[in-house]
Amino acid sequence: MSILIKEVTLNGAVTDIYIENKYIKEIGVGLQVSADTVIDGRRKAVIPGFVNTHTHAAMTLFRGFGDDMPLMPWLEEKIWPNEAKLTKEDVYWGAKLACLEMIKSGTTTFFDMYHKFHVTAEAAGEMGLRAFISSACFDHFQPELQEKSKKTIQKLYDEMDRYGKRINFTVGPHAIYTVSGELLQWVNEFAKEHNVLIQLHLAETELEVENSLKEFGYTPVRYLYHLGVLSPRLLISHGIYVDDDEIRMLADYGVKVAHNPASNMKLASGMTFKFNEMRKAGITVGLGTDGCSSSNNLDMVEAMKLASLLGKVWRKDPEAVTADEIFHAATEAGATIAGLKAGKIAEGYLADLSLVDLNQPAFTPNFNFISNLVYAANGSCIDTVICDGKILMQNKKVPGEDEIMERAGEIAYNLMKR
Amino acid sequence: MSILIKEVTLNGAVTDIYIENKYIKEIGVGLQVSADTVIDGRRKAVIPGFVNTHTHAAMTLFRGFGDDMPLMPWLEEKIWPNEAKLTKEDVYWGAKLACLEMIKSGTTTFFDMYHKFHVTAEAAGEMGLRAFISSACFDHFQPELQEKSKKTIQKLYDEMDRYGKRINFTVGPHAIYTVSGELLQWVNEFAKEHNVLIQLHLAETELEVENSLKEFGYTPVRYLYHLGVLSPRLLISHGIYVDDDEIRMLADYGVKVAHNPASNMKLASGMTFKFNEMRKAGITVGLGTDGCSSSNNLDMVEAMKLASLLGKVWRKDPEAVTADEIFHAATEAGATIAGLKAGKIAEGYLADLSLVDLNQPAFTPNFNFISNLVYAANGSCIDTVICDGKILMQNKKVPGEDEIMERAGEIAYNLMKR
Repeated sequence: MSILIKEVTLNGAVTDIYIENKYIKEIGVGLQVSADTVIDGRRKAVIPGFVNTHTHAAMTLFRGFGDDMPLMPWLEEKIWPNEAKLTKEDVYWGAKLACLEMIKSGTTTFFDMYHKFHVTAEAAGEMGLRAFISSACFDHFQPELQEKSKKTIQKLYDEMDRYGKRINFTVGPHAIYTVSGELLQWVNEFAKEHNVLIQLHLAETELEVENSLKEFGYTPVRYLYHLGVLSPRLLISHGIYVDDDEIRMLADYGVKVAHNPASNMKLASGMTFKFNEMRKAGITVGLGTDGCSSSNNLDMVEAMKLASLLGKVWRKDPEAVTADEIFHAATEAGATIAGLKAGKIAEGYLADLSLVDLNQPAFTPNFNFISNLVYAANGSCIDTVICDGKILMQNKKVPGEDEIMERAGEIAYNLMKR
Repeated sequence: MSILIKEVTLNGAVTDIYIENKYIKEIGVGLQVSADTVIDGRRKAVIPGFVNTHTHAAMTLFRGFGDDMPLMPWLEEKIWPNEAKLTKEDVYWGAKLACLEMIKSGTTTFFDMYHKFHVTAEAAGEMGLRAFISSACFDHFQPELQEKSKKTIQKLYDEMDRYGKRINFTVGPHAIYTVSGELLQWVNEFAKEHNVLIQLHLAETELEVENSLKEFGYTPVRYLYHLGVLSPRLLISHGIYVDDDEIRMLADYGVKVAHNPASNMKLASGMTFKFNEMRKAGITVGLGTDGCSSSNNLDMVEAMKLASLLGKVWRKDPEAVTADEIFHAATEAGATIAGLKAGKIAEGYLADLSLVDLNQPAFTPNFNFISNLVYAANGSCIDTVICDGKILMQNKKVPGEDEIMERAGEIAYNLMKR
């Protein structure tokens, strides 16, 4: 399988890009190669595929189902009773809808934490995306649930040989208030032994910090430090409530952070995410959308704008969190977290990329493409998506998209009636 | 001219809408009327056209030209030297691009403050939008400039008979730090005599408040109160820095407020816009995008999301600024500010409306259409726009859009080289 993208704009200059198998093989003007597929890149700009470092894909099914509500009534009245009813088929179609939405807005890799691991893996596999999937793990501080969790993690890990390289196993301990210290330590050892990543919600709300101090005697990051589970394999989501010393700890142990501005704003979790301080300390900070029940879409272009604007206004500093910095977070930093040679348009890198349609007001004039992408555009600017060297979308259409929307919509309605 | 929209979704139910001349004449299931144009409304929802209550249309030319910069260097190095070079033709094409962008994202009415009044009026007129235009007026506390400003205002007002009812004259004193109290008082009298609206930037930054206290002895709203220029004809833009008593003053005098979340965030002007307090006090609060050099687009759907999310997070209250409240601000409240019988889909109202394409992930599932519109969608969901009973866009295409983008893009590039 080979693809030649002709006369596409890359960093302001027009060039050809030749993709062979999974990789960007050659970049140059007027390439003389033949390819299975030729794409006209005129009036389009090429960018790396976005890496969504935190979501719960199948929660597309709960989009708009309970907004403008405080966290606990929303979970107790709206989300948990309906999540309990979810079948594998429900999660499968919810995840398919999520993959469709991610492809349409230029995401090629996502990190997921949810229930019914295999159907999300299948959905991502079929849709052609790269995924780092975890089964949300809770023991609620009960020894029998702890043993059950360990067995589930081991079992899922053992079942991974059914998937290709695009679909990756990660461990998903939910949060420090739902997972015991013992299980976190076991997960840390497991991840080290099998060289897999860990996804954990951390330092998301003030309440979490208060309870952490009360229950464990430490703030969340310090608690993990004392448990001995800070490591380069750990990806924490949110990480709003961290002080300078905790930032130092995260940096020293190579912990990665996923920033989710839309969710943090909509749930009013907090606004003072310390992007600049973390970057300065050397932490790899990625960007995420969180699930559609809290954010309520999977648009990484919008996430970039929200992260930048929120980062500027709470600091009263228009120079904070620049367009270039947040674009880096959404692409290259995400790829680094995933351990992929991706997130850059360069020879030898994975062919995970998108073409942006420049023929719209958001890119007129186009003095600064990255500024226009971050501050003026939204996910609808994505025209073509290639992941792992395969075309997932062309001319803004994904094969089978109508069926996915229809089935997922039906399932969501029926779920509420069950 | 008559239009029949068949089987469109309105507030969750499917209906027909018959438009005759400029008005919504009849709404009902299976209407038996013949019309000049019939639009298939299936899989589309009808909403009122958005009213963008604050922008500087032609500043589309400066989109992405100097971001992530502090206000003064940005103005002094980037904006002012280039604004000084603008010809009428430049402003005309910049305004055309703005109108195109507004139509494409569902805006049917906008409030403008800029230079070269007539070309913006012509652009809006040709594009079919409803506009409330002002020429930015400054006297810099100099008597001779004050006299010149008065003459310009009177002259422009006298020249308005060249336009139809869609294009409306407003007075545009720029701000209290660029316009003397005497001129503000004269503008207030002029507006009263001619029953026109006044657009004024007010209480946008902390520096403005500090200087107001230093120069005039009052905070901005109190200063206007002491000048005697608070009135129902006054529309203030931004209004971030107002205390409880000032909110009471604004309410008592019927002053209107335009909230611009994107601009306030990107320029780091401030985040604590008191939407809920103002609404509770009875103030009509509209929504705006501000100009493309600060925000950097004219997408009112995005503005709704930003206003709601920002309003929740700074208050730490996920129930603040609900989707319904902000949708009201973007439509009905805007129409009230403009003095239009618009902003609602109801018989006898102006036919200023849009059809939303529901066939996309953002509206799947569609438990709550307004939530999906505000929290999940963006301006690209707009499929069809009708203003004043005329179709401005169908199937996401505006006649002549390629030429507008090409000309405006060229002009912007050439401007920087002059």
